[in-house]
Amino acid sequence: MTDLEGRLAALEERLRLLEDEREITRLILSYGPLVDSGCAGDVAALWDEDGVYDVDEILMTGRDEIDAMVRSAGHQGWIGGGCAHVAGPPHVTVSASGDEATAIGYTLMIVNRADGFVLRRATANRWRLRRTPSGWRVTDRTSRVLDGRDESPGLLAAHFPGAVRHRPPPAES
Amino acid sequence: MTDLEGRLAALEERLRLLEDEREITRLILSYGPLVDSGCAGDVAALWDEDGVYDVDEILMTGRDEIDAMVRSAGHQGWIGGGCAHVAGPPHVTVSASGDEATAIGYTLMIVNRADGFVLRRATANRWRLRRTPSGWRVTDRTSRVLDGRDESPGLLAAHFPGAVRHRPPPAES
Amino acid sequence: MTDLEGRLAALEERLRLLEDEREITRLILSYGPLVDSGCAGDVAALWDEDGVYDVDEILMTGRDEIDAMVRSAGHQGWIGGGCAHVAGPPHVTVSASGDEATAIGYTLMIVNRADGFVLRRATANRWRLRRTPSGWRVTDRTSRVLDGRDESPGLLAAHFPGAVRHRPPPAES
Repeated sequence: MTDLEGRLAALEERLRLLEDEREITRLILSYGPLVDSGCAGDVAALWDEDGVYDVDEILMTGRDEIDAMVRSAGHQGWIGGGCAHVAGPPHVTVSASGDEATAIGYTLMIVNRADGFVLRRATANRWRLRRTPSGWRVTDRTSRVLDGRDESPGLLAAHFPGAVRHRPPPAES
Repeated sequence: MTDLEGRLAALEERLRLLEDEREITRLILSYGPLVDSGCAGDVAALWDEDGVYDVDEILMTGRDEIDAMVRSAGHQGWIGGGCAHVAGPPHVTVSASGDEATAIGYTLMIVNRADGFVLRRATANRWRLRRTPSGWRVTDRTSRVLDGRDESPGLLAAHFPGAVRHRPPPAES
Repeated sequence: MTDLEGRLAALEERLRLLEDEREITRLILSYGPLVDSGCAGDVAALWDEDGVYDVDEILMTGRDEIDAMVRSAGHQGWIGGGCAHVAGPPHVTVSASGDEATAIGYTLMIVNRADGFVLRRATANRWRLRRTPSGWRVTDRTSRVLDGRDESPGLLAAHFPGAVRHRPPPAES
């Protein structure tokens, strides 16, 4: 291999990582606009065939159940009244193999009420994704509301290998 | 063309797409900090000479009208009282030609009141941009508040080619 | 230098800029999940050894003081009750030398209360960073709440070289 070939190969590999992170980020960012406009099939297609969407209140397995959630009277009611599922920028990590990835990010669910907009929920979201022949797809998304339950900060920390949570000592009795 | 030349040309093209998306994202992300600090001319310069900024309440055409909005007593009042135009990460799509682009994203308008911060508006924003000799510029930004009006989810869905909105059947009478 | 070598060198330089912005963005985006899960040492490690974190209410100098803030009863109380430090996407600018950078971005501090989630603060954040042998680190983060104090829009504008703030004329007496 010549020196030029080696430099080219290194560039190709570095660029592929940026492209993978970009594709994953675009996938995650498309969830909000698609779900807030009721594009049920397009939301479901972000997941792998048997992908899982695990929210506090509901566990959906496979595209049909995700599609049904978007079509449900409950979700259509949110859209009809005005709502925004706003995602913060995700922090994406592609695995060493290059074919799997995880991401962590916040989402805010905002709803319009008679007296104005209300922040209904702030949620921690952990995404697992895999590369498929037709691009990256979600294998598992776990969402936990940040209301003090310990599971939610646990989800945030789990994305960072080696990160150590400080836990306050239990109060003395 | 040698093999090395072909690989170089492919890398150059792939990198240019990432650079275009980056420049467009930076342009969109600069709107909030510039408008919340009253940098009227710098906000206006994000648009093309005859660019359009179409918000629910007001239609601005050309840089002078955008500049005037930032200088207006109304906008200066928001700054004086405390406000934040927070943009979520935009989902950017560059056209096949490479010289036009669209982007979709949420914005939150947050204002400070005597009793604390209030989320005044959650808005869907669709941006159209074109490449000019001095970089990417906005040709049209359309913003619609997500308060239940059907136009707003319509704007969100329009960014995704082929996306199909589920519409609930009209209630029976 | 052959033509191929020149094109390779140009690609390497362009890619390095994207990689630097990516690394800085990932650093900034990791702050929220780490601080909301109480990973005190990992939060502190985002800063340079003697880095500064200057918030309205408190000035922290060096990693130990940042670590102590995360461990404090006050911060642990936020986590226990439910809180989210949500960062908007940062606008990152690497210096011409390539070894320093600044970034501007909004953060929202959201807390869970008995009657629901509340937006406690919307804040302007200016980050200064430098490249170290072990990657980019924060040398200075200045955060000012957007409550009408003039310092906060000043911080937003300062990130954009040449940007000019329009200041309304003082009211006549």
